Amino acid sequence: MNNGQITSLVTGGAGFVGSYICEYLLSVGQKVICIDNLVTGAKSNISYLIDNPDFIFVSHDIIQPAYLDEILDDTIQEVDFVYHFASPASPKDYSNHPIHTLKVGSMGTLNALGIAKRYQSTFILASSSEVYGDPEVNPQNENYLGRVSTTGPRSVYDEAKRFAEALASAYYHAHGVDIRIARLFNTYGPRMRIDDGRAVPNFMFQALNGDDITVYGDGSQTRSLCYVDDTVEAIYRLASYSNLSPANRSGFENNPDPIVVNIGNPVEMTVLDIAKSIKDISDSKSKIVFKPLPIHDPKVRKPDIGLANRLLEWNPAVDYITGIQNTFKYFKTYLKEN
Amino acid sequence: MNNGQITSLVTGGAGFVGSYICEYLLSVGQKVICIDNLVTGAKSNISYLIDNPDFIFVSHDIIQPAYLDEILDDTIQEVDFVYHFASPASPKDYSNHPIHTLKVGSMGTLNALGIAKRYQSTFILASSSEVYGDPEVNPQNENYLGRVSTTGPRSVYDEAKRFAEALASAYYHAHGVDIRIARLFNTYGPRMRIDDGRAVPNFMFQALNGDDITVYGDGSQTRSLCYVDDTVEAIYRLASYSNLSPANRSGFENNPDPIVVNIGNPVEMTVLDIAKSIKDISDSKSKIVFKPLPIHDPKVRKPDIGLANRLLEWNPAVDYITGIQNTFKYFKTYLKEN
Repeated sequence: MNNGQITSLVTGGAGFVGSYICEYLLSVGQKVICIDNLVTGAKSNISYLIDNPDFIFVSHDIIQPAYLDEILDDTIQEVDFVYHFASPASPKDYSNHPIHTLKVGSMGTLNALGIAKRYQSTFILASSSEVYGDPEVNPQNENYLGRVSTTGPRSVYDEAKRFAEALASAYYHAHGVDIRIARLFNTYGPRMRIDDGRAVPNFMFQALNGDDITVYGDGSQTRSLCYVDDTVEAIYRLASYSNLSPANRSGFENNPDPIVVNIGNPVEMTVLDIAKSIKDISDSKSKIVFKPLPIHDPKVRKPDIGLANRLLEWNPAVDYITGIQNTFKYFKTYLKEN
Repeated sequence: MNNGQITSLVTGGAGFVGSYICEYLLSVGQKVICIDNLVTGAKSNISYLIDNPDFIFVSHDIIQPAYLDEILDDTIQEVDFVYHFASPASPKDYSNHPIHTLKVGSMGTLNALGIAKRYQSTFILASSSEVYGDPEVNPQNENYLGRVSTTGPRSVYDEAKRFAEALASAYYHAHGVDIRIARLFNTYGPRMRIDDGRAVPNFMFQALNGDDITVYGDGSQTRSLCYVDDTVEAIYRLASYSNLSPANRSGFENNPDPIVVNIGNPVEMTVLDIAKSIKDISDSKSKIVFKPLPIHDPKVRKPDIGLANRLLEWNPAVDYITGIQNTFKYFKTYLKEN
């Protein structure tokens, strides 16, 4: 801590989820160092934070070492928390940046862990439900080991996240870094990129334009959508939880590995129902049309959030209709202004 | 090719399997650049090659970029094959070097792929049956997606190999590098390190010293042991196979991903039977004793080698007794001389 004020560093802080984390941390009085290379993140996501004296934006690609000595001023001597959220995250984005995605999961995580090691920070890794691949169990709990192709088109993201978990775990075991791994399930909300290729912005863009709404496969595959405010609340609680020592964590007494927590909304919906609901709230005349399902697209996806519930006393609080309406309003305004 | 002579670069070329690859390639008339940092490899493994004018040894850690301009002379302009075999490979070794193991799987693979991209080399990745983890199917074929913990003690190796496969696949898809992935199952033979912690050298060391032979668990877990000459023959055939274009590979017509081939011996033995056989051939008075099984130790491990058989017309040729006797002779001499 610096003069009683907590300092957090957020990689990917100009991204969709990262920007909400910055905002949340500032709102609870922290100083925030936001590192982003603005490849899939955007300065517009943090434009309203730039003038905040507690907010420091650094344009930097975390796959290169970040020399904080050059970034920090005399008032910041310590970094209490490192939130490692840098990565392309949608299938479209990581397909466009396959090797960069693998680099940020490996070298980026290494550099972020190096900061946490040096400053003895608590390290929060943004992992993903994609480590479960196309699961044969539903819901997925944290002990499920996944079904992931190492060579297929999604492997650049899935294996990058699995590797990041292994690397963070090695820093926990070998260097004693306080590691907390958040496996985020699908998160949605305002500030998603409208062209990031994911279902919610895709459907909204198509509905708002009166285009056909394209559903891949027959739409019976399921997703569990968590509103971003809920996701960020859980991440903050995971970072702040003080009872995580291996000897003293409920339900994890015999687990010598770092804590891993699913964060998501267990309300499971079919992709077709998501498409229909967006068509409904948009009052759009768009037709829903079907296209072939891409390879390795997960057929089901639903978090078991029992652990987050027990440990962090957390449950998603935003219902789907409220969340999807907020998001729709954002995209409607966005499209008018852009 | 340089004046008609093929040049191969072997990372980890002073390691157990790597040194046999160097030897094999020299025996078929190739020029060999051997890169090794000698952490788990040993100069003694390649001492008899050092005077060969076709052999170039470079002491270098492949987690740092290798600038071949400084290594190559005027006679070598091209690198036709890159064999990426650098990595600690036994549980004892990678537990001693956890972060280095993750780095060589990620940054090391990246640097080796960079060479293959620059010189348009064929790239052979030494992957491992460990990508299958503790499998729920037996035998394992190449389509099995594995059961691997991302946070447990073996994850530093397992996830490093999975990541290396994903990175190599990305270079195949994004840069058109000719990638061939060899998933090696347990390989044994002379030049294993006697203290690398694996069952065969462990049992032999104990038998030769008259110590108790320690079997972990009840010894009913199985392994499939492939003699190193067989392994290396398969690797060479995989590298040389000329029929691997996606449009033209038997059994893989519809697979857009790079070729992945299991290499191992499908003769499955219990660990207890391996211990007994070594006790027998050593004529040792050692007793067999049992210790607790480490976490995530695979209970079964047996390659389905149908693909290697079909594609490479390869089958292991060295029977277990011959192989184990050769290995025993090596360790007996080694212990006398050291």
